[in-house]
Amino acid sequence: MRLATIRHQGTTRAARLDGETYVLLPHADLGALLASGEDWAARAAAEDGERVAAAEADHATLVPHPNKIICLGLNYASHIREMGRDLPAYPTLFAKYDGALIGAGDPVTLPVVSDRVDWEAELGFVVGRTARHVPREKALDHVAGYTVINDVTVRDYQRRTREFLSGKTFEATTPVGPVLVTPDELGPGEPDLEIRCEVDGTVMQRARTSDLLFGVAEILSYVSEIITLLPGDLIATGTPGGVGDGRDPKVFLRPGQVLRTSIEGIGELRNTCVPEAVPPAA
Amino acid sequence: MRLATIRHQGTTRAARLDGETYVLLPHADLGALLASGEDWAARAAAEDGERVAAAEADHATLVPHPNKIICLGLNYASHIREMGRDLPAYPTLFAKYDGALIGAGDPVTLPVVSDRVDWEAELGFVVGRTARHVPREKALDHVAGYTVINDVTVRDYQRRTREFLSGKTFEATTPVGPVLVTPDELGPGEPDLEIRCEVDGTVMQRARTSDLLFGVAEILSYVSEIITLLPGDLIATGTPGGVGDGRDPKVFLRPGQVLRTSIEGIGELRNTCVPEAVPPAA
Repeated sequence: MRLATIRHQGTTRAARLDGETYVLLPHADLGALLASGEDWAARAAAEDGERVAAAEADHATLVPHPNKIICLGLNYASHIREMGRDLPAYPTLFAKYDGALIGAGDPVTLPVVSDRVDWEAELGFVVGRTARHVPREKALDHVAGYTVINDVTVRDYQRRTREFLSGKTFEATTPVGPVLVTPDELGPGEPDLEIRCEVDGTVMQRARTSDLLFGVAEILSYVSEIITLLPGDLIATGTPGGVGDGRDPKVFLRPGQVLRTSIEGIGELRNTCVPEAVPPAA
Repeated sequence: MRLATIRHQGTTRAARLDGETYVLLPHADLGALLASGEDWAARAAAEDGERVAAAEADHATLVPHPNKIICLGLNYASHIREMGRDLPAYPTLFAKYDGALIGAGDPVTLPVVSDRVDWEAELGFVVGRTARHVPREKALDHVAGYTVINDVTVRDYQRRTREFLSGKTFEATTPVGPVLVTPDELGPGEPDLEIRCEVDGTVMQRARTSDLLFGVAEILSYVSEIITLLPGDLIATGTPGGVGDGRDPKVFLRPGQVLRTSIEGIGELRNTCVPEAVPPAA
């Protein structure tokens, strides 16, 4: 099953993709569907409703207001090498706030305060069932499905201090979607899919999600030792090598460039880079 | 004005403190009050309702579900020295998730996975008005008020990677409250108040909030360059010297110990340390 959050008549709705058509579900967004009870998948599969052609659908960010957005740093050997760091013993976790999230076709905002905005294509997953102290071998039962994320990063802010957060949560920078693909569509176990990032048609990142150092089950189990994962929580699993900051010379996103982020079997984000319009100070 | 979130008849309510009595307001919690419109203060001051004796009030965490919890690291020179770091040029920002928050009298959970749980008394502030690209000289207009936070930290998880998050967001560890004190009660400008942390009656931290390296206005203005601050967002401004991890020998919280965190003119958190009860794996 493929699920999304679609903008419709001035608001948003959860939707199920049936071939070339979205069927609108009776929930304000995918997060509300996932929080509506553990049988959400059966209900989402059975529901009928108003239809919107997929080709005309306007995708909101997949889960507009997750309780938690948890990001992994340093989770592909190729990216760890290019950033000049050692292989880690534990998952590196940092956060992002929901004001950073945008839809699969929305513009990526290039902030006025920086010209060092970089791409980070990532496999995302969304929690489908509350998880606390879940052992690794049961962890995949708590995954609602997989999606595509570009953890767009403002490198100078990321490096200003020891903590990544300020470079990772700039307003309207992080596309997520277009759909959530439930695990049954991707085969058993951890996803082994090609992930790719292109800027104006040039391939910048290309890897397989099976190269993650800490896999989906291990991440979910580890986080569940720390805090309760809730339905709708969004996890970005980290990026492979090929970011602009790891190149010589370094390359950053420029106004008008088109950022394409895709994972085979899931879908594609296609986002144009647009300079921030600064409002008058409040 | 002094505002709180009170547990009442199986749910929570925003409340205004009138002398020795809380007046219950028509909002589910302080976050809902702050989000109800920019005239929240006038309405909260004027409202009448059911009353609860303050001595019998059961304080929920001050804002149960902030859109953002933003924490400052390394923001008092005394703490930076004890952690062996250099004075920073920019605010060090990291996050916490709302599952970490507890009320002013609730137990602090000591996680099963660590015996290195440490205290960090902090001045907190809550955003009262949406803030984006706000200059420093107008920043205090966006502060709803001040509160007391103990950013209880699991030191071994904090140090496992470069990123603080995993040591900072353990379930049910972070007391916030008991009240929000509006700025007019604390005099003009930045608060200059004694902050103190005691463990079983021994003073462990004692400083003045005016010793912050990055003050409240500078923090709010800086964050508003990155992302829109929303009413109810909670900011923890960092801790002064005296944490257990900075001592020789190091000292950590033990079951049964009472953690008291206070700021003059605001109030006191009083939390007993209780080992986590691990539920059967889901």
